[in-house]
Amino acid sequence: MKLHHFPLSGHAHRAVLFLSLLGVKAELVEVDIPGGAHKSPDYLKLNPFGQVPVLEDGDVAVSDSNAILVYVATKLGRKDWLPDDAATAAKVQKWLSVAAGEIAYGPAAARLITVFGANFRAEEVIARAHRILTLINAELETHRFIIGDRPTIADVSLYSYIVNAPEGNVDLAAYPEVRHWLARIEALPGFVPFQKTAAGLAA
Amino acid sequence: MKLHHFPLSGHAHRAVLFLSLLGVKAELVEVDIPGGAHKSPDYLKLNPFGQVPVLEDGDVAVSDSNAILVYVATKLGRKDWLPDDAATAAKVQKWLSVAAGEIAYGPAAARLITVFGANFRAEEVIARAHRILTLINAELETHRFIIGDRPTIADVSLYSYIVNAPEGNVDLAAYPEVRHWLARIEALPGFVPFQKTAAGLAA
Repeated sequence: MKLHHFPLSGHAHRAVLFLSLLGVKAELVEVDIPGGAHKSPDYLKLNPFGQVPVLEDGDVAVSDSNAILVYVATKLGRKDWLPDDAATAAKVQKWLSVAAGEIAYGPAAARLITVFGANFRAEEVIARAHRILTLINAELETHRFIIGDRPTIADVSLYSYIVNAPEGNVDLAAYPEVRHWLARIEALPGFVPFQKTAAGLAA
Repeated sequence: MKLHHFPLSGHAHRAVLFLSLLGVKAELVEVDIPGGAHKSPDYLKLNPFGQVPVLEDGDVAVSDSNAILVYVATKLGRKDWLPDDAATAAKVQKWLSVAAGEIAYGPAAARLITVFGANFRAEEVIARAHRILTLINAELETHRFIIGDRPTIADVSLYSYIVNAPEGNVDLAAYPEVRHWLARIEALPGFVPFQKTAAGLAA
């Protein structure tokens, strides 16, 4: 497998993290986003959305970070990470939707303002970030990972933009359960961190 | 099964539509959202997010419209609507992410401004709507439904807020493939429409 990624993209980090947690040796190809490589005709053929990450596996190209998590878990038969009974699969899906929705347009958007100068309204996206963090914190009061006592792809999908939320001026101090959950993910064998932006810019 | 819904919610319509397409007779319970019933302690116990829809099936309560689609398809073994091979499952997931992301914060948000007076920036969400409609229109140039020539839950998830996008001042005139696709979904046996807002307010 070959993963097209960018080190400062939390969407890409989800895929890098999951492959590493599973011990899958994928070739990592860094897309030159500052140079506009994600808008080149070849890249747009791979992913018309012009975004990272994209996973190539033979002649299959999977874009969308949640889709990559589903692809890898399904392909490798890892039902521990993506259970296939209706009730549990639905729980996982709910949080994948949250990652694509409230997280992308909450803490991720807030960070895009400070890191890339993106045109979001800071007040709106920071408020949305705190609303979803409050709900996630409450959810984590009763179990160790987001849908129960074992990690699933839902945790992987939520992790990256929450851990770096402070880069977008979203303070995690009020969410102790969230901070404990971040630490639990970071303690999993194979964990690889989502680098901080200062380190990224200095690299 | 019992579905808690609201007629003007596109998220709820996704669930109503899918149950109807499958011929599942569910009890429909209208949540009095104008009266604030979705913020009542009992409802928040059912769904801490305080949103419709919620599907109750015995002692399972599923919230998030995408999660309901996954639950129903999986529970009923409808692999035609949610295939379980890795590449196809990933394709479905990609569009569920789009529904939870660009659609929710694009055409759905634009409609929330005009229908419910929601506090989004019209210029921002309408522009996002046109970007994703352009990509969806291109995708539909080569197949009849969003991931191929058969409908899946990805089509159901995308349908509701696209068909009513004009209510949020998002014109579909420039997207002929999208309009043909809407008509194909509307021709499926068991289809039920997402009512227009004027009809809803007059009801």
